[in-house]
Amino acid sequence: MTAAPIRITGARITPVAFVDPPLLNTVGVHQPYALRAIIQLDTDGGLVGLGETYADTAHLLRLEAAAEAIVGLDVFALNAIRAAIDAKIATLTVTGGDGVAGMITTASTTDRVFSPFEVACLDVQGKALGRPVSDLLGGKVRDAVPFSAYLFYKWAGHPGAEPDEWGEAIDPDGLVRQAQKMIGEYGFEAIKVKGGVFSPDEEIAGIKALRAAFPDLPLRLDPNAAWTVDTSIRVASELDGIVEYLEDPTPGLDGMAEVAREAKMPLATNMCVVAFDQLKPAVLKDSVQVVLSDHHYWGGLQRSRLLAGICDNFGLGLSMHSNSHLGISLAAMVHLAGATPNLTYACDTHWPWKTEDVVKPGVLKFVDGAVAVPTTPGLGVEIDKDALAALHQQYLDCGVRDRDDTGYMKSVDPTFENTCPRW
Amino acid sequence: MTAAPIRITGARITPVAFVDPPLLNTVGVHQPYALRAIIQLDTDGGLVGLGETYADTAHLLRLEAAAEAIVGLDVFALNAIRAAIDAKIATLTVTGGDGVAGMITTASTTDRVFSPFEVACLDVQGKALGRPVSDLLGGKVRDAVPFSAYLFYKWAGHPGAEPDEWGEAIDPDGLVRQAQKMIGEYGFEAIKVKGGVFSPDEEIAGIKALRAAFPDLPLRLDPNAAWTVDTSIRVASELDGIVEYLEDPTPGLDGMAEVAREAKMPLATNMCVVAFDQLKPAVLKDSVQVVLSDHHYWGGLQRSRLLAGICDNFGLGLSMHSNSHLGISLAAMVHLAGATPNLTYACDTHWPWKTEDVVKPGVLKFVDGAVAVPTTPGLGVEIDKDALAALHQQYLDCGVRDRDDTGYMKSVDPTFENTCPRW
Repeated sequence: MTAAPIRITGARITPVAFVDPPLLNTVGVHQPYALRAIIQLDTDGGLVGLGETYADTAHLLRLEAAAEAIVGLDVFALNAIRAAIDAKIATLTVTGGDGVAGMITTASTTDRVFSPFEVACLDVQGKALGRPVSDLLGGKVRDAVPFSAYLFYKWAGHPGAEPDEWGEAIDPDGLVRQAQKMIGEYGFEAIKVKGGVFSPDEEIAGIKALRAAFPDLPLRLDPNAAWTVDTSIRVASELDGIVEYLEDPTPGLDGMAEVAREAKMPLATNMCVVAFDQLKPAVLKDSVQVVLSDHHYWGGLQRSRLLAGICDNFGLGLSMHSNSHLGISLAAMVHLAGATPNLTYACDTHWPWKTEDVVKPGVLKFVDGAVAVPTTPGLGVEIDKDALAALHQQYLDCGVRDRDDTGYMKSVDPTFENTCPRW
Repeated sequence: MTAAPIRITGARITPVAFVDPPLLNTVGVHQPYALRAIIQLDTDGGLVGLGETYADTAHLLRLEAAAEAIVGLDVFALNAIRAAIDAKIATLTVTGGDGVAGMITTASTTDRVFSPFEVACLDVQGKALGRPVSDLLGGKVRDAVPFSAYLFYKWAGHPGAEPDEWGEAIDPDGLVRQAQKMIGEYGFEAIKVKGGVFSPDEEIAGIKALRAAFPDLPLRLDPNAAWTVDTSIRVASELDGIVEYLEDPTPGLDGMAEVAREAKMPLATNMCVVAFDQLKPAVLKDSVQVVLSDHHYWGGLQRSRLLAGICDNFGLGLSMHSNSHLGISLAAMVHLAGATPNLTYACDTHWPWKTEDVVKPGVLKFVDGAVAVPTTPGLGVEIDKDALAALHQQYLDCGVRDRDDTGYMKSVDPTFENTCPRW
């Protein structure tokens, strides 16, 4: 018996805001609220699929247009759904809206808009079939997905507010204290540091302090392209044997290739290879050795598997980027990572920097630095309607509509300039 | 509710033989019988999945070993199934057995053995879900898949036998007559010629005769690497503007790259890029412009989609190879091609060279040169038990155990040598 199609009847797109600490990066500082859009995809059989993505103004306009374009399509017709969104996007005149404060501007708009709908379709598929999403991706190859402790230089609290529970981290000691607390509470077995905030020598000192405090944990440093080629080569030399990879030391495929020729460790990226059309030039130039996947801009889970397959067969390592997330995206990341054999690095996560959520608690827990792959149908997470309403109200109230780390930093320090590379 | 796993309980592997005309190629001539292995994958719920592959002796031994290795696994656990087969294969000492008379010797053994089991698992998945296999591949993007008329130089009949219904084709007139009959009966809208049999000038004359007889149909010529680089460049120049692509004119990635630098048409291959580890060198050398996929050695339908995605993003065209097939593989090819947006060339098929089959008739029909994508659950084809038993008996009786086009040719013409390149 052929099953009936499961047709999309519409999508409810709800922008939400959650509190975010003053985490520093090379373009500025996180605002008090970070934004996400929650997709509830409705289907004619009554099943609802969940997706999560950026919530910048332009992105929300595209999401609304995309939601209209896919009404009537079967949740299994992912090729047709992507084509419909691609065609619809081409008719829009909105610009901007990458949700990540200008750090990833060359990603494919179609893939970025398609992603949450694809995740929601897979959630519906899984619910209809009684299968976890990982089963739709070839089946999990690990029961739990390891994540890294994501350290940030940060202020003690937002200007004018009380210090948060993490306190200040603006030097090596602060980083080590932060790591001790985070690893003590969640058991992470790898460490990533967001750099590009202080001078390269200060950040080298931070990494060396972490190495001394955690001699056995893999370390990574990500300055978001804050350095020139020469600076990058010097830092790479100083951190030889200390970091497992160096992430986006300098901008662009050509600069990265120059650094890669000299650096002894692999170079990783979530800035110069963020779309499929950048893979061939990156391979030809040998610009990077590790690609950080991120299903939010790589076009969903199936296309992230394509990226994984490309990395597997073109000699590239694979890791996973986080641009913050609530529980829906974390679930999607865990299903994807759990079913991707060559994802051998610990994934990035913004947990525990964000504590608010829109899903019912209990499914996604960090134990020994890892999250178990949910085994219930679909993504395995459920919307908490009250929490969703509260975070939507917070969105309406908070005034943030487009992520602007630079503007927020300038409001605190008018002399700040977003220059790239800075050193 | 989480659905129960659908566990593999075993696989019945049945070698079959079907009658094959005396089709000529550069390594010899098709024997009177061609071999295939039919996989019936049994599961604990009673659903049976179908797969089809080569049946050379060594391959059959590997299939039997693989079938044992995957007992107990869930049909959705494709990552684990491939890993189990990979591990098992590594323990075997059998050599050879590529099923294609030595023309494709560098394909991945694991992918070749995994393929029919993966197809059978997808067949079970589809049957369990009430969904055609195309839905498990992102959904069909076309309702019917166009194929090309596959012309062969051939003898009138096997030595000592009556002429077959196709008669002789050993010159341009013979090729044109064959094309007229085949296109008249099945409506193909593209033509592929298996070359490498006569001198390049004779085959150029054949292509030009076809161009005159069918001015509007895309043409391709595939000499199976029968030519040197210089000869290939000369033929490419003579066929400029006449063929849509030239397939495997010369052996190897380096030779193909030399030809590609001079040839004006794209070069296609199913010989020098037949495994994932050959893609990166092919891209770096710019050896080919079109890859012919073939799920039998590219590791099944999901990995063929990975190949398609790689081609899509590395500037490579995508077509589909046929190494003969019965109805199970034809169904798999049609589901795959139907769900692959960038498969824009007409696919190869050995229909109507083979007339016997193991599936119940009626599902797969060539209409206007195309086959409709089945819409019933799974692959959409059903075993005809009597036909399977008859073709298995034919296997037992015919004496052919390993494809040997060269040996058969030598039995007819003792002076024949399999030289590559020949001209």
